[in-house]
Amino acid sequence: MQFSALQLATILNGKLEGNPDVKVHNIAKIEEAGEGLLSFIANPKYEEFIYTTKASILIVNESLVVEREITPTLIRVKDAYSSFALLLEKYNQMAGDKKGIQQPSHIPASVKMGENVFVGAFAYLGENVVLGNNVKIYPGVYLGDNVKIGDNSVVFPGVKVYDFCTVGKHVILHAGCVLGGDGFGFAPQQDGSYKKVPQIGNVVVHDYVEIGANTTIDRATMGSTVIRNGVKLDNLIQIAHNVEIGENTVIAAQTGVSGSTKIGRNCIIGGQVGIVGHIQIADGTKINAQSGLSKSITDPNKSLTGSPAFDYKSSLKSQAIFRNLPDLEKRVKELEDMVKQLLSEKEGV
Amino acid sequence: MQFSALQLATILNGKLEGNPDVKVHNIAKIEEAGEGLLSFIANPKYEEFIYTTKASILIVNESLVVEREITPTLIRVKDAYSSFALLLEKYNQMAGDKKGIQQPSHIPASVKMGENVFVGAFAYLGENVVLGNNVKIYPGVYLGDNVKIGDNSVVFPGVKVYDFCTVGKHVILHAGCVLGGDGFGFAPQQDGSYKKVPQIGNVVVHDYVEIGANTTIDRATMGSTVIRNGVKLDNLIQIAHNVEIGENTVIAAQTGVSGSTKIGRNCIIGGQVGIVGHIQIADGTKINAQSGLSKSITDPNKSLTGSPAFDYKSSLKSQAIFRNLPDLEKRVKELEDMVKQLLSEKEGV
Amino acid sequence: MQFSALQLATILNGKLEGNPDVKVHNIAKIEEAGEGLLSFIANPKYEEFIYTTKASILIVNESLVVEREITPTLIRVKDAYSSFALLLEKYNQMAGDKKGIQQPSHIPASVKMGENVFVGAFAYLGENVVLGNNVKIYPGVYLGDNVKIGDNSVVFPGVKVYDFCTVGKHVILHAGCVLGGDGFGFAPQQDGSYKKVPQIGNVVVHDYVEIGANTTIDRATMGSTVIRNGVKLDNLIQIAHNVEIGENTVIAAQTGVSGSTKIGRNCIIGGQVGIVGHIQIADGTKINAQSGLSKSITDPNKSLTGSPAFDYKSSLKSQAIFRNLPDLEKRVKELEDMVKQLLSEKEGV
Repeated sequence: MQFSALQLATILNGKLEGNPDVKVHNIAKIEEAGEGLLSFIANPKYEEFIYTTKASILIVNESLVVEREITPTLIRVKDAYSSFALLLEKYNQMAGDKKGIQQPSHIPASVKMGENVFVGAFAYLGENVVLGNNVKIYPGVYLGDNVKIGDNSVVFPGVKVYDFCTVGKHVILHAGCVLGGDGFGFAPQQDGSYKKVPQIGNVVVHDYVEIGANTTIDRATMGSTVIRNGVKLDNLIQIAHNVEIGENTVIAAQTGVSGSTKIGRNCIIGGQVGIVGHIQIADGTKINAQSGLSKSITDPNKSLTGSPAFDYKSSLKSQAIFRNLPDLEKRVKELEDMVKQLLSEKEGV
Repeated sequence: MQFSALQLATILNGKLEGNPDVKVHNIAKIEEAGEGLLSFIANPKYEEFIYTTKASILIVNESLVVEREITPTLIRVKDAYSSFALLLEKYNQMAGDKKGIQQPSHIPASVKMGENVFVGAFAYLGENVVLGNNVKIYPGVYLGDNVKIGDNSVVFPGVKVYDFCTVGKHVILHAGCVLGGDGFGFAPQQDGSYKKVPQIGNVVVHDYVEIGANTTIDRATMGSTVIRNGVKLDNLIQIAHNVEIGENTVIAAQTGVSGSTKIGRNCIIGGQVGIVGHIQIADGTKINAQSGLSKSITDPNKSLTGSPAFDYKSSLKSQAIFRNLPDLEKRVKELEDMVKQLLSEKEGV
Repeated sequence: MQFSALQLATILNGKLEGNPDVKVHNIAKIEEAGEGLLSFIANPKYEEFIYTTKASILIVNESLVVEREITPTLIRVKDAYSSFALLLEKYNQMAGDKKGIQQPSHIPASVKMGENVFVGAFAYLGENVVLGNNVKIYPGVYLGDNVKIGDNSVVFPGVKVYDFCTVGKHVILHAGCVLGGDGFGFAPQQDGSYKKVPQIGNVVVHDYVEIGANTTIDRATMGSTVIRNGVKLDNLIQIAHNVEIGENTVIAAQTGVSGSTKIGRNCIIGGQVGIVGHIQIADGTKINAQSGLSKSITDPNKSLTGSPAFDYKSSLKSQAIFRNLPDLEKRVKELEDMVKQLLSEKEGV
């Protein structure tokens, strides 16, 4: 497939600068793009590449200032990053669209499917599973009884969804993630052993959610563990039973959220963060990587860091002094010597 | 299915208060329970709900004091949490019991099976695999050669068990967990590369163990990595080669235990804890979430926190001062100024 | 299979001390080895076992000093650990060599295979997949379109490799690991939602790499996420998009590396380490478990610890004082009292 600068400018509703007829056949990073390739500059850090790149077409922000002569044809848009993403998405859609039912797969008669569905070989669908239109179930996926997957959602290879969990529309579940495993609930017995508390709730994933590879989301003890619209979860994240995550909250890899905690909307949570159970995190909270949250955050839009976590700026100050603790201890020792000297002299007097 | 308060009180051996004929058809959380539903109160925090809930039947502790009129029929028991768990378990058992061998599955002639076994489609059993009575192997499970699974154990979808590992009775292996991957052992070579040390041991999981989704337990270099009776492991935990975990120890999600470490019995270990290799952790040790253990714990029943971890109470004190380090540093600065002043005045004299 | 001491000494090019005709039929740890068994001593800690073990043959270092009479026949070699590893490897090779194509498996006509390949049941190969000689694809593996696996590589059960990723020679991919899941890239929108940035790069794994169970390596946004020759990754590790890891670098379990970070060669990185995105880590860097790296490391061969991490020795000093912070705070309080006293006396004068 080839596209001219004019075609791309039209698709993106952008302003064209340079040769409208120049053509590209593929995409590359600005550092690596050569003739016949399309790239973009969104980050000011990369703006200097504009003078050296051999890319044929560049998507750039409207505001970019060009001070010298350049090789590529420019397409100026409001937000180069989003425009490039849009283009990639369209490209991906054209690149290949899996359809049909591969054999062998396990699909009971009680399963209901929309139009244009793909089910890969060795996929297992339980009784009463419902798949919406354009759903893609990759090979080796397991969907338990009564699982529902909404329109346009993609379930990558080896995903496991336990009975009664529901997944919304436009959701992406990456390879190996597990939805609906039993919550970690045990009643301690007098002899020191633990008795399993049956977990009879489910997991409810709303629309436009993306869940990373090998991430695990446990079913609620009762009721639902809830992942709301637009939430993005990275790989290897643990979401415990009865947790709720608010709209458009983003969580980086290897973070863990303990049971019954409610996270607000529009939060940004770094990687390897740990959050204890039964607390609330206010809307718009930002939590730095590797932090540990042990208390509710009630004021919205705060930034936190540390384990245990507290206010970001204060925490940075404490960390700076921590690095110089041996120095502080030395200063205290010197003070003690001087004061001892002063006291002994006074007594000497 | 419907149950009357009298039936439930009889099953639980509880004391009935209220209408014995009222019936329930399902279960719900106390906050959400309405007419025709059964709920329970175990945590004193939830006791106030007793006056507002519309649940038809409540299981409560013997000791619960009711001061005003209430709607639900009560069933008083010694331990409301355990009784409710028992009820859920019976309910689950009635709800559905998978049996039989689905096709296609891979089951060599050398495999031995007990009675009442379930093997799902696309499950792969190696040579000489032995399955006890009532074992459930879900779809897409892989059991290597010579693997043994004891009576009444459940292996959820996508679990992988390497050759020669053994799993006891009443064990639950959740989706995607991996038992018996190679331990991480390499001999450094003079050219900077590493030579793999073959890992020829196995993993031995005893009875009544539960292992969470996507948790990994490596085989021993030689001998066995051992998970003893009643151990409960949450999701995404890493257990390295030659580790041993004592009876009834509970470990929360995303914790990692390095090679050859021996953990005692009845320990409670939080999430995201890291434990170095080749140490011993005494029985009854409690380790707070996100702690890092670098030394053996020899005294039983201690609580620890921090990274590196030390005594829980001392650690909390240090953390409190850490939060005020800028203040402490300011106090030292002020002392320095005052002492300097005193010294200069003395010299001035 | 039985081997005599003479046979083993010949294979290992070692020096034989004792009865050359004594035979062994299996291997065991030095603590557990008995008659007819082979073991080794590499670690001086275990040298005392030489006087008590009932093992028939021991592989030991050339330098080992024997002061009293012993039972086993010794084979002295330069490096007992490596020699034992070599022996195990040969033993493993003889123990069983899987070959052939099991059914049902999904293998399109466009797939190219070398000689001596094993493909297990329920394995799914996409279009144009290329498998080198002696490749082993275990049951339930998923290889997307255009995936390449080099000679002598082993792909354990349930591994998922997305389209266009390439794996070198002599690579081991352990059960459940995921190569090529989408990088975690989203463009924030004005309404607070996030728009997915399509991830069109791939993952390139070079030769002699080992990747642990349930580890996840994301595809690059554009270009490649690169794992170079001899890298060893433990279980449950997260490698984000566009990361590069240099030759012979070793990373322990549950560590996470954020997007676009470049790690040098011959680094040793502990477990549960977090590394932020867009930084460089110099060759030979050693990072202690649970550390957090937020800045580039430019000097090679440094050791770091802490979160945020800094120089290992300084960090240990700060940690030591941290444990005594309540004491330091008390000393400052006492100084304040004394100085106050001195000041008031002076004024009193």
